[in-house]
Amino acid sequence: MDNNIRPVPLDKSYRLVNHGPTILVSARHDGVDNVMAAAWACGLDFSPPKLTVVIDKIAKTRELVEKSGIFVIQIPTAAQAKLTLELGTVTMHQQPDKLANAAVELFDLEDFNLPFVAGCSAWLACKLIPEPHNQQTYDLFIAEIVGAWADARVFKDGHWQFEQADPSLRSLHYVAGGHFYAIGEEIIVGASQKS
Amino acid sequence: MDNNIRPVPLDKSYRLVNHGPTILVSARHDGVDNVMAAAWACGLDFSPPKLTVVIDKIAKTRELVEKSGIFVIQIPTAAQAKLTLELGTVTMHQQPDKLANAAVELFDLEDFNLPFVAGCSAWLACKLIPEPHNQQTYDLFIAEIVGAWADARVFKDGHWQFEQADPSLRSLHYVAGGHFYAIGEEIIVGASQKS
Repeated sequence: MDNNIRPVPLDKSYRLVNHGPTILVSARHDGVDNVMAAAWACGLDFSPPKLTVVIDKIAKTRELVEKSGIFVIQIPTAAQAKLTLELGTVTMHQQPDKLANAAVELFDLEDFNLPFVAGCSAWLACKLIPEPHNQQTYDLFIAEIVGAWADARVFKDGHWQFEQADPSLRSLHYVAGGHFYAIGEEIIVGASQKS
Repeated sequence: MDNNIRPVPLDKSYRLVNHGPTILVSARHDGVDNVMAAAWACGLDFSPPKLTVVIDKIAKTRELVEKSGIFVIQIPTAAQAKLTLELGTVTMHQQPDKLANAAVELFDLEDFNLPFVAGCSAWLACKLIPEPHNQQTYDLFIAEIVGAWADARVFKDGHWQFEQADPSLRSLHYVAGGHFYAIGEEIIVGASQKS
């Protein structure tokens, strides 16, 4: 396991997704692990911290999320752009060896029985809040964040530190058709020290 | 009205928010206009295009959205970071002159009776899909995108063109405490020409 991974206090965990990165959703059920990419994940509440994520009915990961009730939202890096695109376009239903083909490496974190994807910059363990109408009508899943970790090279003291880290660690922001942007330069408004 | 503003086909409109920018929500009802900033807006569907946005009960804009059933999601630029922070921290309930104080300039677009914020890079006219449970329990609003426009200097042919435009036009991605990132460098995966 990467020694740079540090827990993030839950009251700061929303900041890991607040800037709108493309994410990877991973889940485990009955011996099956899967990972998919998604652009549509979003903060929902501060306390307790919650988020939303849109997971299509075609996704094998959706079945694992619905059956286990828990999943991981993790933030892939610029270095993982190719992997992210691949995990967002191939479904395990059609390609059972999806994870091996994409060279996805999984690891464990503390007491969570979940598949965490190595090489990402942050990880959120999420507990599904069942909302059948949203899930069925909109493919919209709501969850509470119950664990959070980040790579201390790029997230420290409750803030992203992209400007101090290698550009390969920047978050990805997907547009369409293989076209991403990495997150860019810092802008600080006001006299506030980042707090 | 800025002559660079061009309509965006609705089937490409999701791409305006797909990369996770911080946005401004504006709405009009009964002679009152308001604008607020929000980090929690997100794509929900492609066809018809839909999005979600989280609007706190404290927000005057929420009342306007609920009463009129329509609103605008627009994407502020790096040049508007200070304005964006101000519109996200001050509420009209406490400061009736909020818009004047922040020097917000509004303009009209085509047949929509909505307040569009000048100087942004893209605008989505949204029609509320009433979901009282989501609105009351989670402050979560679902809407269909019924009109889309972008500044052609920075969004063209269905893709953002940040790398070709002035850095002041880049989108903002909020973390917390006055700390934003601008969107950064383009990453293209695969042989695909952006389509």
